[in-house]
Amino acid sequence: DSLWGTWLRRNAVHTLPHCVRQLHASGAVDNLRRVTGEVDGEFQNMWFADSDVYKTLEAAAWQLVHTPEDLELRSFLDTTAALLVKAQGEDGYLNSYFTVAKPEKRWQELHWSHELYCAGHLIQAAVAAARAGVGAEIVTVARRFADLIVERFADVNAVDGHPEIETALVELYRVTGHRPYLDLAARFVDLRGHGLLNPDRFGPVYLQDHVPVRQAEAVAGHAVRQLYLLAGVVDVAVETHDDELLAAANRLWEDAFGSKTYLTGAHGSRHRDEAFGDPYELPADRAYAETCAAIASFQWNWRMLLATGDVRHADEMERVLHNAIAGSIAADGEHFFYSNPLHLRTGHDGSHEDAPSQRLPWYSCACCPPNLARLMASLPGYAVTTDHSGLQIQLYTAGEIETTVDGHAVRISLRTDYPWDGRVEITVTTDAPLTLALRIPGWCRTEDVRLDGAAVDPVGGYVRLRRDWARGFTLTLDLPMPARVVRPHPRIDAVRGCVALARGPLVYCVEQADLPDGVTLEDVRIDPSTVMVNRTSVVTLAVAGSVRSADTELYPPAVDETAEPITLTALPYFLWGNRKPGPMRVWIPLS
Amino acid sequence: DSLWGTWLRRNAVHTLPHCVRQLHASGAVDNLRRVTGEVDGEFQNMWFADSDVYKTLEAAAWQLVHTPEDLELRSFLDTTAALLVKAQGEDGYLNSYFTVAKPEKRWQELHWSHELYCAGHLIQAAVAAARAGVGAEIVTVARRFADLIVERFADVNAVDGHPEIETALVELYRVTGHRPYLDLAARFVDLRGHGLLNPDRFGPVYLQDHVPVRQAEAVAGHAVRQLYLLAGVVDVAVETHDDELLAAANRLWEDAFGSKTYLTGAHGSRHRDEAFGDPYELPADRAYAETCAAIASFQWNWRMLLATGDVRHADEMERVLHNAIAGSIAADGEHFFYSNPLHLRTGHDGSHEDAPSQRLPWYSCACCPPNLARLMASLPGYAVTTDHSGLQIQLYTAGEIETTVDGHAVRISLRTDYPWDGRVEITVTTDAPLTLALRIPGWCRTEDVRLDGAAVDPVGGYVRLRRDWARGFTLTLDLPMPARVVRPHPRIDAVRGCVALARGPLVYCVEQADLPDGVTLEDVRIDPSTVMVNRTSVVTLAVAGSVRSADTELYPPAVDETAEPITLTALPYFLWGNRKPGPMRVWIPLS
Repeated sequence: DSLWGTWLRRNAVHTLPHCVRQLHASGAVDNLRRVTGEVDGEFQNMWFADSDVYKTLEAAAWQLVHTPEDLELRSFLDTTAALLVKAQGEDGYLNSYFTVAKPEKRWQELHWSHELYCAGHLIQAAVAAARAGVGAEIVTVARRFADLIVERFADVNAVDGHPEIETALVELYRVTGHRPYLDLAARFVDLRGHGLLNPDRFGPVYLQDHVPVRQAEAVAGHAVRQLYLLAGVVDVAVETHDDELLAAANRLWEDAFGSKTYLTGAHGSRHRDEAFGDPYELPADRAYAETCAAIASFQWNWRMLLATGDVRHADEMERVLHNAIAGSIAADGEHFFYSNPLHLRTGHDGSHEDAPSQRLPWYSCACCPPNLARLMASLPGYAVTTDHSGLQIQLYTAGEIETTVDGHAVRISLRTDYPWDGRVEITVTTDAPLTLALRIPGWCRTEDVRLDGAAVDPVGGYVRLRRDWARGFTLTLDLPMPARVVRPHPRIDAVRGCVALARGPLVYCVEQADLPDGVTLEDVRIDPSTVMVNRTSVVTLAVAGSVRSADTELYPPAVDETAEPITLTALPYFLWGNRKPGPMRVWIPLS
Repeated sequence: DSLWGTWLRRNAVHTLPHCVRQLHASGAVDNLRRVTGEVDGEFQNMWFADSDVYKTLEAAAWQLVHTPEDLELRSFLDTTAALLVKAQGEDGYLNSYFTVAKPEKRWQELHWSHELYCAGHLIQAAVAAARAGVGAEIVTVARRFADLIVERFADVNAVDGHPEIETALVELYRVTGHRPYLDLAARFVDLRGHGLLNPDRFGPVYLQDHVPVRQAEAVAGHAVRQLYLLAGVVDVAVETHDDELLAAANRLWEDAFGSKTYLTGAHGSRHRDEAFGDPYELPADRAYAETCAAIASFQWNWRMLLATGDVRHADEMERVLHNAIAGSIAADGEHFFYSNPLHLRTGHDGSHEDAPSQRLPWYSCACCPPNLARLMASLPGYAVTTDHSGLQIQLYTAGEIETTVDGHAVRISLRTDYPWDGRVEITVTTDAPLTLALRIPGWCRTEDVRLDGAAVDPVGGYVRLRRDWARGFTLTLDLPMPARVVRPHPRIDAVRGCVALARGPLVYCVEQADLPDGVTLEDVRIDPSTVMVNRTSVVTLAVAGSVRSADTELYPPAVDETAEPITLTALPYFLWGNRKPGPMRVWIPLS
C-alpha cells in the first residue's frame, strides 16, 4: 500500500484500460484499420494519433510483466500487434495518416509530419515488448520499419520536426545489437540544428533546428521536443562514447535546471509554442508545464543519472515524478491534465488552450494520458541502479527488488511509508560483497540524516556501504521530513514576495476548497514561521496566514490593507483538483 | 516644438512616407494591381493586406488637412484612389485577396477572411477623405462597397471574425446620413456572440462570439478584436440611443480598466491568441500589449468620453497615448514595436513572435505602422471636445485650436511644455459666453492644482468656468508634476514587491544602457524614497537603488544577498529602446 503501489495498481486497473477504450472511441485504432481496409471513412483525429496507440502498447507490455494474467490487456496487445502486421506496407512503411490521407506526401513534410516521431514510439513499444517477453510481432514490425528508415535516411540529410526517433533507435540497438540503428540515431542528432527543417510558422527554435546540440548553450523552443531530443542525445553519447555530446547535454541540463524549471519539476513557461521561456521566466499562472514534458524530463534525467552518476539527476526524477507527473493524474486514474500550472485564478478557464481547470478524460491531442500509462507501468524499473561494484537506491518506495550485480543475485527489501515518512528499512540479501549506495535527497539537511541511529557522511549525495551482505543485513535510514519553506531565486519575477511549502519530495499548495466561505484565494497571505505537520491519511500542513482586505485602484500610490488572521491548510500539489474545482496556488504571498 | 508637434511632424516627414514605401515594397499595392490586371503573379503578403493600404490612405487624408501642399502625399492618395476605382467590381465588391486568390470563397469564410474588416478600413479612409475634403473617389468606392454589404447582409445572419466594420459603418452614416449603414452596424453588433462564426482553432472567445455584448461581463479574447468591437458598440449605442448597449460598454470598460490594463495603458496579457488574460494577470515580461490594441483603446475611450463625459476616459486616452502608443514608434519615426512589453530580460529574443527586442521597419503582419500613421495624423482632433454649452480641454499640448460652440467661433491658444511641465497658459477668444472645462488629470493631487494661483475645486475631474470670453481671457493652470511612486494592486502577482516611477502622464523605466558595466538589470533594486527630477532635454528621474549579489540555487530555503548602492536613471517609457538595444523594466523590485 505504498504510494507507488497505489499508483501502479491504479494504472493497471484504471488508466491503462481507460486508454485502450479511448483509443477505440477516438478512432485512433480505426485509422490503422483503414490502412488494412477493415474500416471505411476518412482518417480521424490528429495526424500523429498512431503514436497514442504505440504508447499504450508500450504501457501494456510493461504492465504484463507485473500482471501476466491480465487477459484483456494481453488481448489488446495481441490484437493490436496483429493489426500492425497487417497494416505494415510491403516495404516496411507504417503510418496510418500518410497511408490513408496523404500517400503522395510520404517523407515529404518531415518538419510537421511526425512520421519518424510515430516510428519512434512504435520502436519504443517494441523495445518494451522485447524486454517484457511479449508481443514478438511488434518487434518484427518495428525492426522492418526501422530497417526501411535506415535505408531511406542513411544518405539523406533530413530530420523529423519532433524528436523521439533518436532515443528509440538507440534503445532498439541496445535490444538488437544492430549497429546501423545507433549510427542513424547519431546522424539524426548531428543533422539537427542546421536548418534542414522547414521552419514554417513556428520558426527554427521551436524545432531545436536553430543551433546544433553540440553548440547549444540553452534549452529552447517546444519543451517536449527539446527534452525528447536530449534523452536521445544522452543515449547516443553513451553508446558512442562521445564526451563532447555528453558535455553538451550537461551544459543544457545546467541551463534547464538552473533557471527554467518549476518547483514541481515541470518545464515550459509559455503557452505560446508550448515552449521554454527566458531564464527565470517562470510564471505560476501561465506555466504550461506539459505532462509530456515532465515525463520527458524524468526520462532525460534517468539517462543522465546512468551516464554520470550525479545524484542531482535522481533528485530531479524524484521531484518531477512526485509533483508534476503525479499531479497530472486524477485520484480516479481516468482524468488528466495536459498543462500543470502552479496557480489557478478564480474564474480562470483555459479549456480552449489544453489547460482546463479540471482534469479531462481525454484530449484531441492525446499525447499525455498514454504517456502516463507507459511511465507508470515501467516505474519499478527506475528505483535502483547498479554498476559493476554495487547497487544504488535512487528512489525510495516500499517493495522488493531482485537484480544482479556482477553476476550475483541481489534481493533488496524496502519497508517505508515514503514519501509520507522518511524512515526506510532496507534489507539486503546477496552472497557476495557489494557497495550499497543510499541516495540522500537534495531536499534533506544532511546533518539530520541518520543511518541506524548514527550520523552519516554522504559523498556526492550518497552514503556508500561496502559490506559482505551474505547474512542479510537490515539497515534503517532516517530522512527527517520537517515542513520546509522554499523561496524563489531573486530573479524569478513572477513569484517575488511569495514562498512555497514543501515536505520531503512533495511540494504543497493551498486550494480554495480549504478556505472559509467568503475568502478568495487571491487575497490570502502566509506567515510561514508557524507551519505544522498534520498526519492524517495524507500529510497536510497547517500554517498561519491572513486575508487582506483592501479596495484599491489598479495602480495606486499606496496600498492600505487590513488583514484578518486565518489558518491555512496546504495539501500535496499532486492531489490538487480532486474535490470541487477551483483556485489553487503553490506560491503564496508573504503577509 | 511641443511633444505633440514633434510627433506630428515626424509622422508627416517620416512615418507616413515610410508606410507608403513599404506598401509598395511589400506588394500590398501590387495586390490591388493584380485585380486590375496591371501586375502578374500570385497574391503576396497577408490576406488582409488591403487594410494596410486603406489605413495609410486614411492617414494621408488626415495629413493633407495640415499639409495640403504635400504633393507626394496627394499623389499617393490620388493614384491609390484611382486604383481602387479600377479594382472595384461591377457589383461594388473590393478585396484583392478574394478576387485574385479565392474568388469562389467570397463571403464564405467570414470567421477568418477579414473581408468586412478590410471593408471597414476602406470606409474609415473614405470618412477621413470626406472630412478632409480630399479624395472624393474614395468616398464613392467605399459607398458602393458599403451598399453592396448592406444588400448582402441585410437578411443574412453573419458577422466578420475581426470587428471594424461596425464603427466604420456608423462613421459612414455620420458622414452621409444614410440610415441603412447604421442599421447594419447595429445588426452586426447584436448578431455577434451567438456562435455564428466558425470557431476554428481559436475558439469563440478569441472572436468575442461566446456571448452577446449586451450580456458580456468581461473583456476577453483577441484584444484588438475586442476593443475595435467596443468602439463600434459605443457608436451604435450613441446613434441609436440604446442605453442598454451603452451600459454594456461601461460594464466592459470597468472590467478592462479595473483589472486588465497595463500601467502604460496597453492591453493584452498573453502572446497566445494575442489575448486578454484573467483579472490581474498582467505579466510585465510577457505583456503582448499590441500597438493596435493601444490605438483601439484610445479610440474606444474617445467614444466613451463623448458618450458619457466621464473624465476617466480622457485620463486613459492620455495614458495610452503618452506611453504604449508613443513608445511603439522609434525616435526616427521609421521603426515600430508590434508588442510593447514592460520588461525585457537580458538576452531575450522575441522576434519569432512579433515581439522583437528592437523596433523593426515593418512586419509581415503590418497592421501596426499604418495604424500609428493614421492616429498621429488625426491627433489634433482629440485635444478638445465641445457640447452645446461649452468647450472641454481634454488633452494638454501647445497649440491653437479653432472650433465653434453653439454657432459661435472659438479660438483657444495653449502655451505649455506639457507633458514635461504642468504649467498651461490658456487664452480663450470668442464673442459669446461659454463654459470652459479644464480637465484635471487623474494622476494629479487635486489639492496641489492651481488656477491663476488659486486652489481649484474640480467637479467630476473638471474645473468649469462659465464666463463671457469676448475680451480674450488668459488663464494659467498649474498641474504640479512631482515624480510619483506607483504600486501595483495586491492581486497583480507578476509585479508584487515592485514599484514603478511616473511623472505627469508619463510612466518611466530603467534601461540597461544607463547602468554601469558589470551590473545586470535583473539584479537592480530600488529605494523610491529618494527620487529626484532631472530636467534636461527630456525629464529623467534619478533614484537611489542597489545591486544585489547572491549566488543561489533556483529554489533555496533562504536567500542571503549583499547589496551595493547605485544611483538609477529612469527615462520615459516611450523613449526606451532608442539607444543600444538591451534590457528594460518599468516595474523595479524594492530593495
